[in-house]
Amino acid sequence: MKAAFYKEKGKFEIGEGQQIKPGAGEVRLDVAYCGVCGTDVHIYHGVMDARVKPPMTVGHEASATVAELGEGVSNVKVGDKVAVRPLHFGAPHAFDKGFAHVGKNLKFIGIDSQGAFQNSWTVPAYTLHKLPESLSLKHGAFIEPLAVACHDVKIGRVVAGEHTLVIGGGPIGTLIAYVLQEKGAHVIISEVNENRLKMLNDLGFTTINPAKESLTERISELTNEKMIDCAFEVSGSAPGVEAMTQVVNVRGRIVMVAIHGGEKKPVDLFKFFWSEIELLGARLYEEEDYEEAIRIADSGQVPFEKLITQVDTLDNIQSIFETIDNNPAGMKYLIDCQQ
Amino acid sequence: MKAAFYKEKGKFEIGEGQQIKPGAGEVRLDVAYCGVCGTDVHIYHGVMDARVKPPMTVGHEASATVAELGEGVSNVKVGDKVAVRPLHFGAPHAFDKGFAHVGKNLKFIGIDSQGAFQNSWTVPAYTLHKLPESLSLKHGAFIEPLAVACHDVKIGRVVAGEHTLVIGGGPIGTLIAYVLQEKGAHVIISEVNENRLKMLNDLGFTTINPAKESLTERISELTNEKMIDCAFEVSGSAPGVEAMTQVVNVRGRIVMVAIHGGEKKPVDLFKFFWSEIELLGARLYEEEDYEEAIRIADSGQVPFEKLITQVDTLDNIQSIFETIDNNPAGMKYLIDCQQ
Repeated sequence: MKAAFYKEKGKFEIGEGQQIKPGAGEVRLDVAYCGVCGTDVHIYHGVMDARVKPPMTVGHEASATVAELGEGVSNVKVGDKVAVRPLHFGAPHAFDKGFAHVGKNLKFIGIDSQGAFQNSWTVPAYTLHKLPESLSLKHGAFIEPLAVACHDVKIGRVVAGEHTLVIGGGPIGTLIAYVLQEKGAHVIISEVNENRLKMLNDLGFTTINPAKESLTERISELTNEKMIDCAFEVSGSAPGVEAMTQVVNVRGRIVMVAIHGGEKKPVDLFKFFWSEIELLGARLYEEEDYEEAIRIADSGQVPFEKLITQVDTLDNIQSIFETIDNNPAGMKYLIDCQQ
Repeated sequence: MKAAFYKEKGKFEIGEGQQIKPGAGEVRLDVAYCGVCGTDVHIYHGVMDARVKPPMTVGHEASATVAELGEGVSNVKVGDKVAVRPLHFGAPHAFDKGFAHVGKNLKFIGIDSQGAFQNSWTVPAYTLHKLPESLSLKHGAFIEPLAVACHDVKIGRVVAGEHTLVIGGGPIGTLIAYVLQEKGAHVIISEVNENRLKMLNDLGFTTINPAKESLTERISELTNEKMIDCAFEVSGSAPGVEAMTQVVNVRGRIVMVAIHGGEKKPVDLFKFFWSEIELLGARLYEEEDYEEAIRIADSGQVPFEKLITQVDTLDNIQSIFETIDNNPAGMKYLIDCQQ
């Protein structure tokens, strides 16, 4: 069976993968579609070689059909369509306080162990969430990033009628915007890339380009001076960090979605004191976020087809990653892993 | 009647104050004791001249006896012992979401208008909280800073059995530690001043001097690797900001108590994402925090006498502020405003 292997910085290779018989509590899947995550692009850029240990099959935004059950598996049956929650929980630690999805001993399937960019994939049965018949396998590949968005909105405690701002309108930011819309919140997206802005406007979102107009003034107009109840920092940029404290109102929440690695960025801590604002970290997802993502996906409220920039086969994985590097305004790229 | 006037940087003067007849909804107080707050010291240093507009009578940590009632006042009667919640709420604004204590139009009595460093003081009746007979007027001057501490602990959502850390063991940090203790939390105080450390140790607190030993290693030992559930950044220092993200566990909370003005400090935003930690701003107090402070003060659990560095009369106010400048390790200084 076919598998893509990340070999070294800038290089994937297609080769013969190993079909693994599911052990007790495991399930072998026929992978259908797998989205390309920003983390996969980081891996492709070679910056995660210490963790990923090439040659490695990566990919974790997968939909699949159940092909074979290991001993004792009862939550799915052969032929079920599923999405995979790619978390391998390690031993609990007091530091984690029961939040296994961000626990000290968590391993991420598709980074720390074999991922979905292959025809056949064997995973623990507890990672599987059944997809409804009405949801296609292609759209099922959106469940993982949509669950991230559901988790972020849950952490932000957003309720209907609130004013929200998404800083950074890439794939995750856009999915957050759809989840916010589904909750009945007012949504504004801040984005600097003109191609993305055009796409977001075409999708019907209210957008601001902070490089061209004052973000705070425009938000003040749009909200009648109330400003933002909950902002999502998804940009990972210094201007995003600068903006996040300026836009929120008293007791406003800022959800930290982006991964701010590298040098520490200056933050306006005075504003936290002055208006009692909150900064809330959010990472990955819990089981309930997957169920919520499946519910929202099945409701038809997210126009997945419009968010897909390109679908291509495993054989063309190298070309897909090169295209992503050349097209930073792209949205979601899917790999069809069925051939 | 006697009043202290802040005249200019480094200078208080004693003079004849104006006894003000209480208008409708107002109460005239005979001031008993008024504590010196860090903000009063800032005013004395001249850094708040634009806001304070000298000559000005400042002071806001006051206990008093009700002397005269304005029309329509029914919440207190002449002779009642009271503590003053020195907030003048302005017109509500959508930005405030009902949190008037940090609202856009809030004025602070004792900074933006006449304060308590005088014999007689006229304030709105709604600012008054009755003190129980068993609580002395001297200890009643602690209600204001103790209400700050109650508010901070409430914002931190601390529950019994949790591990907490107070970064900065000055007057507010120490009162936070007592409120945490009253909630049944485990308390550690981080402090670098040796005199304060000795005092905190004598009071029975577990302390760490991060200049002499590793804060994170010592906390790991003290908590059996669980680390801190809720940390309070009261130091206002860059090392405090550095430490706050290092000590908390998964979903750990950091309460931002200190006023980080000036240049923005770098913050480890990655840690927010990685362990889903929270930064929660806290400022001043709400009505219920005063009631809680009075309850805790009356319970006898805070050894106020041990926290008083010096009591002196209004006539000696200049000397008190000079002493504070020369003794950064001091705790609470009280001005007896009765003479």
